[in-house]
Amino acid sequence: MNNDLILLGHGSGGRLSHQLLDELIIPIVSGVSQNGQNDAAILEPVTGRLAYTTDSFVVDPIFFPGGTIGSLAVHGTVNDLAMMGARPLWLSVGLIIEEGFGKADLKRVLEDMRGAADAAGVKIVTGDTKVVPRGKADKIFITTSGIGVIEHDLKIHGANAQPGDAVIISGNVGDHGIAVMAGREGLDVGTDVVSDSAALNGLVAEIIRAAGDALHVLRDPTRGGVATTIKEIALQSGVSITLREEALPVKPAVRGVCSILGLDPLYVANEGKLLAFVAADSADGALAAIRHHPLGSNAAIIGTVEASPSGRVRMETSIGGMRSVEMLAGEQLPRIC
Amino acid sequence: MNNDLILLGHGSGGRLSHQLLDELIIPIVSGVSQNGQNDAAILEPVTGRLAYTTDSFVVDPIFFPGGTIGSLAVHGTVNDLAMMGARPLWLSVGLIIEEGFGKADLKRVLEDMRGAADAAGVKIVTGDTKVVPRGKADKIFITTSGIGVIEHDLKIHGANAQPGDAVIISGNVGDHGIAVMAGREGLDVGTDVVSDSAALNGLVAEIIRAAGDALHVLRDPTRGGVATTIKEIALQSGVSITLREEALPVKPAVRGVCSILGLDPLYVANEGKLLAFVAADSADGALAAIRHHPLGSNAAIIGTVEASPSGRVRMETSIGGMRSVEMLAGEQLPRIC
Repeated sequence: MNNDLILLGHGSGGRLSHQLLDELIIPIVSGVSQNGQNDAAILEPVTGRLAYTTDSFVVDPIFFPGGTIGSLAVHGTVNDLAMMGARPLWLSVGLIIEEGFGKADLKRVLEDMRGAADAAGVKIVTGDTKVVPRGKADKIFITTSGIGVIEHDLKIHGANAQPGDAVIISGNVGDHGIAVMAGREGLDVGTDVVSDSAALNGLVAEIIRAAGDALHVLRDPTRGGVATTIKEIALQSGVSITLREEALPVKPAVRGVCSILGLDPLYVANEGKLLAFVAADSADGALAAIRHHPLGSNAAIIGTVEASPSGRVRMETSIGGMRSVEMLAGEQLPRIC
Repeated sequence: MNNDLILLGHGSGGRLSHQLLDELIIPIVSGVSQNGQNDAAILEPVTGRLAYTTDSFVVDPIFFPGGTIGSLAVHGTVNDLAMMGARPLWLSVGLIIEEGFGKADLKRVLEDMRGAADAAGVKIVTGDTKVVPRGKADKIFITTSGIGVIEHDLKIHGANAQPGDAVIISGNVGDHGIAVMAGREGLDVGTDVVSDSAALNGLVAEIIRAAGDALHVLRDPTRGGVATTIKEIALQSGVSITLREEALPVKPAVRGVCSILGLDPLYVANEGKLLAFVAADSADGALAAIRHHPLGSNAAIIGTVEASPSGRVRMETSIGGMRSVEMLAGEQLPRIC
C-alpha cells in the first residue's frame, strides 16, 4: 500500500477517512477540530438577506498558470455571491477524488483553497470527501457552495439593465481560458498568459460605494465569456446592448494566442473579471473606483444599453462594421473551470 | 449529433447549456424561470440559527433498488441537517456529467431529486452543471449542499452523549448498502432488499417533540455503518458505549446476503436510519414516538452509554461474549453513496 496516494478506503467513512480528515483536510482547510465536527456546521447569526450559490469545478489541468482547481473553486463561488452584491461569508467543499491521486497534490490543492478563502475573507465550514476507483474520475473534482449576506437595499441583478447604462468590464478579457488551455496543451506562451482567477468581493464593495443605486447589474463573464454573459443580460433585462470592439481590453499575448488558434477573446472564460452596468451619470465615477482597485486597473467602458430591440447584442467592429453577438454556440474550450 | 445524449457543449456555459437548463434541468428541479436566474439565489428571511452542510454522491449504480443517485443526493443532505436538529429549507445542486450520458437518464435523476425534495419539504434553489469528456467521470456525480434552521435551544451534537443514555436505532440496518451492492453486481436478492434512502427530518421533529432536552445526540449511520458512527460518538463525547447484538434489527434477507458475502451489517451503510441518544428516563417515550412514525416502525434500543473508559465501544454478542467495536478499517463497499 502506497502511503502517498489516496485509496478507495479514504472515502469509506471509516478509519482511513478519519485519518485523512484529521491529518490533512481539516487542519488545512478549516481549523475546526475533529471533536467539533458534526453532520452540519452552525452559522453565526447575521443581519440581512442571504444569498446562496454553488459551482462544480472540473478544470483540466488542475494546476495551471496563475492558479489551481483549489483557488478557482473558492474564487468562483465567492464571485457568484459578490455578483449579487452579497458579502461572502461561508463555503462548503465537496471533494470527489480519483483513487491513486497523490496526497502531495491534494495538499497543494487544499492549501490553495485555504489561501484563497483567507484572502477573500470567507470561511470553509463544512465539507465531504468521496473517492472513486481509478479511471472513474479525473484526479479531483471540487464542488463549492457559498452563503453571503446582502447588507444593502440595492437591486443588483441580471434583469435590471436599463437604457442608457454604461457597460464596464473590470479589465483584460480571456486570460483564464487561454492560460488553462496553454497549461493543458503544454504550449509555450510566455509568462504573460496567466489566469486572472481572483476573488472580486473587495472590488464589488468599492463599486457599490462609488455607484450606489446607479449600479444595476453585476456579473462575472466566466464560461462562455463576455459575449455569452452580455447576451444573457440583454435577454433577461429585455434591452439592446451595443459593444465597441476597440474598447475591449485584451492583453497582447492573449490576443496573439487567440488569433493563432482562431479563438475570439469575447468568448473565452474569465475568472477574475466582472461586468458592471451603471447609469450613465455615474459611469465615470464607477470606472474610476474600479481602476483604483488592484483588480481593476485595466477597466474600460465597452458598451451601452438601449431600450430596443429586446435581447439584441451587437458589436461595432474595429473596422467600423456592426456584427451580431450571440451566445457561445458549441464548446470552445472544455473543462475551463 | 445525437440529440438524446449530453454533449460537452452542454457544459460550455453557452447556447447548449442554456437549452439544457431551460428545457430540462430548471423546469424539473426548481420552477425558477430562466429570467429569474442569477449567480446566486436570494433566501427568504428566517428566525433561528442556521445549519449548513454538503455531501458529494458518486453511487454506483445510479439506479438501484429503492432509489437513485438523485433521491439519495437529496436525502443525504436533508438528513445531515436533520441530525443537527435543524429544519431543512434549501438545497444547492452541482452536477458533474460524463459526455454521452443519456438525457432520459438525466431526466429520471432530476425528477427523483425533485420528488425527494418535495417530499422532504425543501427547495432546490441554486445549481451548476459541468460536463467532462467520456471516460473522465462515471455517468453522473451530484454534490448537494443544504441550509436548515434550528428553531429550538436543544444541544444536539456528537459530543453530547451522556452516561446513562439509551442508544436507539430507528430501524433495520444495512438495507442501503446491500441493495446498492446487489444492484451493482446484478445479484438476485429478491424484492426484500431495497435501499432505505429516505428523508428523516419528519422523524426528527417527532423525536424532539417526545424527548425534548433528553435528546442528546442524533446521527445517521451512513458510510461506515452503525459501528463507525457509534465509535465516532464515543470518541467525540469521551464516553463508553455497549451495544447488544441481539437487539440490533436486521432484515432476514439482508442478514442472509451479509452472511453469504462475509459482511457485518454493523458496518453496512444506511441512508434512512438514525441513531438517537436519549436520557434513560425518556428513552421509552422516545422509542414509542419513533415507532409511531412510518420510518421508525422497527426501532429498538440497542445499547447504553457509560462514563468510562472514554472512547470505547463494545458489543455483547448473541452467544454472550463481548467484542470490541472499531471503525470500518478499509473500504467494505466502495461508492455506496
